[in-house]
Amino acid sequence: MTLSLGVRAVYIATAEAGDDEMARRIADHQMRRGPEWTTRAEPLDLVAALKATDGQGPRLVDCLTLWLSNLMFAGRDWRQAGQELVSALAVQDDPVVIVSNELGSGIVPENKLAREFRDAAGLVNQWVAAGSDEVWLAVAGLPLKVK
Amino acid sequence: MTLSLGVRAVYIATAEAGDDEMARRIADHQMRRGPEWTTRAEPLDLVAALKATDGQGPRLVDCLTLWLSNLMFAGRDWRQAGQELVSALAVQDDPVVIVSNELGSGIVPENKLAREFRDAAGLVNQWVAAGSDEVWLAVAGLPLKVK
Amino acid sequence: MTLSLGVRAVYIATAEAGDDEMARRIADHQMRRGPEWTTRAEPLDLVAALKATDGQGPRLVDCLTLWLSNLMFAGRDWRQAGQELVSALAVQDDPVVIVSNELGSGIVPENKLAREFRDAAGLVNQWVAAGSDEVWLAVAGLPLKVK
Repeated sequence: MTLSLGVRAVYIATAEAGDDEMARRIADHQMRRGPEWTTRAEPLDLVAALKATDGQGPRLVDCLTLWLSNLMFAGRDWRQAGQELVSALAVQDDPVVIVSNELGSGIVPENKLAREFRDAAGLVNQWVAAGSDEVWLAVAGLPLKVK
Repeated sequence: MTLSLGVRAVYIATAEAGDDEMARRIADHQMRRGPEWTTRAEPLDLVAALKATDGQGPRLVDCLTLWLSNLMFAGRDWRQAGQELVSALAVQDDPVVIVSNELGSGIVPENKLAREFRDAAGLVNQWVAAGSDEVWLAVAGLPLKVK
Repeated sequence: MTLSLGVRAVYIATAEAGDDEMARRIADHQMRRGPEWTTRAEPLDLVAALKATDGQGPRLVDCLTLWLSNLMFAGRDWRQAGQELVSALAVQDDPVVIVSNELGSGIVPENKLAREFRDAAGLVNQWVAAGSDEVWLAVAGLPLKVK
């Protein structure tokens, strides 16, 4: 399947090819994007990426969970970054679609860092969802309207 | 965010501060509750807590999953306790809102106890949901009506 | 609860009793099925099972996730098998209901095989859902219409 839009669009990628598996996932994603997509890699400063791309067409941020992981791994203040992201989203002219993940519907992990990460992801998802015009849950690849 | 209702309400807490992390989670939850909330801690006997608080306003039970965990850890018969809870819920005058968790949407855990716990949680969720007037799924903090 | 339909139906079971726990799960499932159910065990060749049972009433395939696990464990090409299943489903006369599982809403597992499995399960769920007339998400045992 190719993501074809008929208009130019910007793919804001938060993933970094830290190992072979991640590099392969990134390459898989790139192959699915048609020629109208411009890719902008931004592991940490999503606010700057949004500002720089406003006016270039709709933006797809893929994904919020990896961005959060990058922030925590870099020792950044993810709470502050999350709030700044929500503020920046509110003043965009071109549409922004943000992909995120549910991490909290399995067994509570034994790993303490994993527990902190899923707590943080739940909060960031809530903040961004609260500020979004629409929220959709993907179930087996199908959209379910939440908001 | 403060949970403010404008009426008095009862928070039935099933969590116990078994370690520092849990104590911090409990303190976080307490801070979010406004002055109209009365807290009643009840790790095991939810039926008694519901009976004792009926007539004191709406009750929020937080959460069913920890209650089940407490039952299993104490060696109680969780199937019988679950059925007794459903029977007790059916005869309450004041409303009861029960928070629970989906545990079964991750990879099947390698830990046998974790597998038994998620099986049990799935059953208790089904029993309570079947007897409830409304069921909502929280997605990124937003409510999705199931029933 | 007994699954009683009033018409004869076929239960296509993909599970194999590889250990005591699985044998007990299978026995639990069998007890819930009324006398109108015929059981057909088929761990790998779902297409053959569908072809052989078309005309015998509605079929319930339980479940897609174990089938995929069996394919991967047997070293089969699960991508090809998944596509063949979707093609076979499109030409069935009697209805087919397929049970599957969401595996991807927990923390990303540390186990590489588990990551591959949940990626594969997500793809197979998407392929089958895309070709289905209806898709329902079970939440605490209650159906939520997705498609």
